[in-house]
Amino acid sequence: MFKKSLLLIGLCFLCGIIQAQELKSPDGNLVLNFQLTDQGVPTYKLTYKTKDVIKESKLGFAIASGTEQLDKNFKVADVQYSSEDTAWEPIWGEQREIRNNYNEMFVNLTQDNRMINIRFRLFNDGLGFRYEFPKQENLFTFVIKEELTEFNMAGDNKTFWIPGDYDTNEYTYTTTKITGIAGAMKEATHHVLDQFPIKTLAVQTPLMMKSDNGLYINIHEAALVDYPAMQLNVDDKKLAFSAHLVPDVFGNKGDMNTPAQTPWRTIVVSDDARNILSSRMIVNLNEPCTYEDVSWIKPTKYIGVWWQMFTGRGSWAYSDETNIKLGVTDFAKLTPNGRHAANTANVKKYIDFAAANGFDQVLVEGWNIGWEDWINPVREYLFDFVTPYPDFDVKELQRYAASKGVKVMMHHETGGSVSNYERHQKDAFQFMADNGYNAVKTGYVSRIRPKGEHHDGQAMVNHYINTAKLAAKYKVMVNSHEAVRPTGLYRTYPNWLAQESARGTEFESMGGLPPEHTTILPFTRMMGGPMDYTPGIFQTDFTYYSADNHNRVRTTLVKQLAYYVTMYSPLQMAADLPENYERFPDAFQFIKDVAVDWDNTYILEAEPGDYVTIARKAKGKNEWFIGGVTDENAREAVIDFSFLPAGAKYTATIYADGKEADWEKNPQSYTIKSVPVTHKTKLKQRLAPGGGIAISVK
Amino acid sequence: MFKKSLLLIGLCFLCGIIQAQELKSPDGNLVLNFQLTDQGVPTYKLTYKTKDVIKESKLGFAIASGTEQLDKNFKVADVQYSSEDTAWEPIWGEQREIRNNYNEMFVNLTQDNRMINIRFRLFNDGLGFRYEFPKQENLFTFVIKEELTEFNMAGDNKTFWIPGDYDTNEYTYTTTKITGIAGAMKEATHHVLDQFPIKTLAVQTPLMMKSDNGLYINIHEAALVDYPAMQLNVDDKKLAFSAHLVPDVFGNKGDMNTPAQTPWRTIVVSDDARNILSSRMIVNLNEPCTYEDVSWIKPTKYIGVWWQMFTGRGSWAYSDETNIKLGVTDFAKLTPNGRHAANTANVKKYIDFAAANGFDQVLVEGWNIGWEDWINPVREYLFDFVTPYPDFDVKELQRYAASKGVKVMMHHETGGSVSNYERHQKDAFQFMADNGYNAVKTGYVSRIRPKGEHHDGQAMVNHYINTAKLAAKYKVMVNSHEAVRPTGLYRTYPNWLAQESARGTEFESMGGLPPEHTTILPFTRMMGGPMDYTPGIFQTDFTYYSADNHNRVRTTLVKQLAYYVTMYSPLQMAADLPENYERFPDAFQFIKDVAVDWDNTYILEAEPGDYVTIARKAKGKNEWFIGGVTDENAREAVIDFSFLPAGAKYTATIYADGKEADWEKNPQSYTIKSVPVTHKTKLKQRLAPGGGIAISVK
Repeated sequence: MFKKSLLLIGLCFLCGIIQAQELKSPDGNLVLNFQLTDQGVPTYKLTYKTKDVIKESKLGFAIASGTEQLDKNFKVADVQYSSEDTAWEPIWGEQREIRNNYNEMFVNLTQDNRMINIRFRLFNDGLGFRYEFPKQENLFTFVIKEELTEFNMAGDNKTFWIPGDYDTNEYTYTTTKITGIAGAMKEATHHVLDQFPIKTLAVQTPLMMKSDNGLYINIHEAALVDYPAMQLNVDDKKLAFSAHLVPDVFGNKGDMNTPAQTPWRTIVVSDDARNILSSRMIVNLNEPCTYEDVSWIKPTKYIGVWWQMFTGRGSWAYSDETNIKLGVTDFAKLTPNGRHAANTANVKKYIDFAAANGFDQVLVEGWNIGWEDWINPVREYLFDFVTPYPDFDVKELQRYAASKGVKVMMHHETGGSVSNYERHQKDAFQFMADNGYNAVKTGYVSRIRPKGEHHDGQAMVNHYINTAKLAAKYKVMVNSHEAVRPTGLYRTYPNWLAQESARGTEFESMGGLPPEHTTILPFTRMMGGPMDYTPGIFQTDFTYYSADNHNRVRTTLVKQLAYYVTMYSPLQMAADLPENYERFPDAFQFIKDVAVDWDNTYILEAEPGDYVTIARKAKGKNEWFIGGVTDENAREAVIDFSFLPAGAKYTATIYADGKEADWEKNPQSYTIKSVPVTHKTKLKQRLAPGGGIAISVK
Repeated sequence: MFKKSLLLIGLCFLCGIIQAQELKSPDGNLVLNFQLTDQGVPTYKLTYKTKDVIKESKLGFAIASGTEQLDKNFKVADVQYSSEDTAWEPIWGEQREIRNNYNEMFVNLTQDNRMINIRFRLFNDGLGFRYEFPKQENLFTFVIKEELTEFNMAGDNKTFWIPGDYDTNEYTYTTTKITGIAGAMKEATHHVLDQFPIKTLAVQTPLMMKSDNGLYINIHEAALVDYPAMQLNVDDKKLAFSAHLVPDVFGNKGDMNTPAQTPWRTIVVSDDARNILSSRMIVNLNEPCTYEDVSWIKPTKYIGVWWQMFTGRGSWAYSDETNIKLGVTDFAKLTPNGRHAANTANVKKYIDFAAANGFDQVLVEGWNIGWEDWINPVREYLFDFVTPYPDFDVKELQRYAASKGVKVMMHHETGGSVSNYERHQKDAFQFMADNGYNAVKTGYVSRIRPKGEHHDGQAMVNHYINTAKLAAKYKVMVNSHEAVRPTGLYRTYPNWLAQESARGTEFESMGGLPPEHTTILPFTRMMGGPMDYTPGIFQTDFTYYSADNHNRVRTTLVKQLAYYVTMYSPLQMAADLPENYERFPDAFQFIKDVAVDWDNTYILEAEPGDYVTIARKAKGKNEWFIGGVTDENAREAVIDFSFLPAGAKYTATIYADGKEADWEKNPQSYTIKSVPVTHKTKLKQRLAPGGGIAISVK
């Protein structure tokens, strides 16, 4: 990590005289205008190549009564401009080096005896801005009732959205015009466990849009720290969005204590959809990592005792007893149900498979006591995180795994009982340290304790970060499920390797995901950071397990391979059962080969909701992997190999959908062939309905 | 601890046939009747020597919707009788051995496919009963909306009460008839920090009453574990009380998970007020201690860097800076205010004084960073419990104290931010272990976090107990302030040495306590357990500190001495400044001499609101100490020394109010004289208005 240059142009304007400011992106394509209205309300607008992205939109806050609102009567006391063009090297990521290039405008606003600042950073790929509350006599602590930030759109954009919800983001996406959101909301708000939909019209970020005049616009936030997540109110008459922060149990939306700042509000813009996916603006807006030692943080490929439960072949719980109670029930005396998957013998088989096929870790869910009755909002003490079931021998499995060069991955399901988890967290991490674990999957299924708090509220935002920081003290990597969606914090806390925070593969076993789902996720959920999507399901038709199980994964087998490239994560699971990989060893070779860390990334083709094709160079190796996915429609991908170094010849192994392949009728039809390629190669390749393409190049 | 006898008389009645039961106390004076109404509502009534104590009163629960209520349609499935007459030896206490003698009736009630049990224990000094919810298929978890237990009184009793409040018990007592409560409630609900008065007519327990026909009746609870505290609704038309549990943030009143039980509802009764104070029923109803090692638990006499702040001579905070923020503010760079009491040099003076006068410990408040702005409901991270102010040298003070045979006592003020405390608690106790601390005063001033929880709710009840249990792992004794009032749990957790949980001496510096206050506390707050009342104030007139400070302690000096006997605690503070003790060395001798642990206790005189005279024999020594207090009226105490062993002659040193002594006009007038006494001595001694008497016998 090094700093190329830092140009500071300080321009101090006389108080209140100059109230309108302009800022341009380094390439001049984006123009931001800041202005106070006659009433002293801060506003901004944004254009891209002269096209309106955000029309004049207000900024400010409603705060708890007793203090004047922070929404008007402001004066501009000072404006400072600066620029940065530096680069830094992430510990892991989609590229070895990330350029951080922006022009900044820092606006100091005063209101009576108080002040707030707004810091705008304009990159070539978008705008980030945040509010800052400096330490000051007359603004020490205050409570936000609502952030008043507006995003007024210039047209009735095509929008890829999920319903506003304080507790879950595990919805399928709906695609409508802004004016179509209201009509589609009821159907879009399908059942999700412990959902808490916003009663007024609202959607979640990252929100992806496409304007009629060809602009791709993504609204999200960066560096969500000590603040509630931002969702968006929808005003479909004005074609406008506005901040809707997730409330605490009192309905308040942020306890502020100066000095403080909001997360960055981010608007990524381009007229080429590929630039949305290649944008690094959100991670750039996060703070650098301050860990002294990061040597223990390693991208990880893993398998898990997990899908076995979703296919009905195993259970998380050790017994079928229901009324169990930690501290009272003697789990050693329960009658085993005979289906408990996390038993020593079974886990050893997974360890054997991992060792034989080059996987780093084996996740084991259901290893610890309490799973007989764990989704129960009346109970707080759901798990202790340190006591295994009688048939799970921690020491023996650690010994066995170590002898094979494999790690067992810890699982901390909290059942949403975070107060209980926090009480046990240090003991739980110490238990991991004592037993050789270096990675944990955390889970937050069900209603949150403390009572009335939400998954996406300020208290929980702080909990997830505190967990990442605490884990770092024990040199533990974290993979959080059911947490608030990411906002680029993996830069600051790189041991927070991945998150779920969207509808992932598990839902394929509970009704299925539409084929377009994974053509939308890169433009939405994944704008904030890596997703533990848990791909790699080869056996997509569940009648394989039981004649009356009509679930099916809505992809071809090859599309599952493509995910290892299109669904970026430094933590990649091969989620299917080992036996299914053994049935298709040639296809499985791609999963064994594919890298989990990259020198560079090339977005070859992209259209949200339709298709994504990405090539990546493996870190430190002359190997490339390409993945392409389509929605429910077949398509022809055009793969331009110009990312390869000129001059040399390489061998591409192409994993393609078979001619008759179809996610529904013939998902396991595929072909594998090797062809020579150079940087001049342009490969046309048909993708089946719900299909994909995966290529490895050496 | 040994078991003298256990007589079990199992009587199984045929289901539903016999619905009325009677139980008598071992001495036959108390009679309990249990009966189901025609609608299957459980009821009970209680008489003492044929006088009604509790008229027929209902039992049951309202539970959250979706399940049939637990309030009627019950049948008696089984009744079992048993008796116990054993004795046990507390680790510390008012007497070396406690007799546990009761007759029990266990009633098994069924309702459709569910069952609950009610267990009645009738002692010679009162009734305890609790509800039990056995593990069962159809009652696993449920939410209590309200406990329906009634206490219907037989007359318009004289009542000593404080207002119902979910967050504080730091009120002065009001004395009225039951029918006078409503009219006096407004004035009784005077301002207390972060009070949360119950909106309907309610009072707190322990509730002390005296009936027109001469019965003393005390209603409280025992073994409050994993359940909200019980306060009492007042129906002044029916002369009835009913349970009012402290709600959680949703207004619910108990998350139950079978097997479970409520605390014991206790009614202590006698026609002699002295028997109320000598009752051990509440502690008997608590579970025995299960700690393996209790050798580290020691009754303690201590002084503190504490009253210095209340007298205006010092501050908790190190600086006068206000907008401090942990993790941001560099406390080493703040400008000291010059009044910070917890500085190394000052604490050394206290250590010197403690060592010179035989005190075990020196409490130091304000030692750790964060006191500049600590009562602030918007902030969660108020203290870290491990970082001293720059002028407080932990290591040096521990070295210095150890060299003098004294301990420094830790202070954990949470500011009510319990979620923050729980996150830091293990580190904080480890810090204590690393630095030689073995006792902590905990504080819970201000609104509770998790948001919306109350000091007396189920979540906090669990927190206090968890803290005692966690402290025990580190061999740490706990003295909790602003916690829920005690219910005899010191039997189970004897390292939970004392609590405040009432209006204590600190309020003498904030408006004062009425002289009768300490004639009521033994009958109310102290029924549940020892109180850290912090007595021993010799300089009662605050003009001593500053001409314009018109606060004063409303006692004579001698009454402060008497408290060391009348206000039982195994943890006793000498709360005044060392300089004030040095001004009255002859009176101070009593504090130096008085024991903090006892072989036996003799209640010599008692009338709630008027006077209390108690004698105690020091543990393992032929020394006795006697304390007597009166309210605002002078009185003549009659001290019967018949508790002394017959035959021997002893010397009594009598600390008495001077002839002209008066709490207001002449508080520091006292006489000290020695007289010979035997078990036949009957000493008449005048107590001044607001005065007392203290006697040591060797």
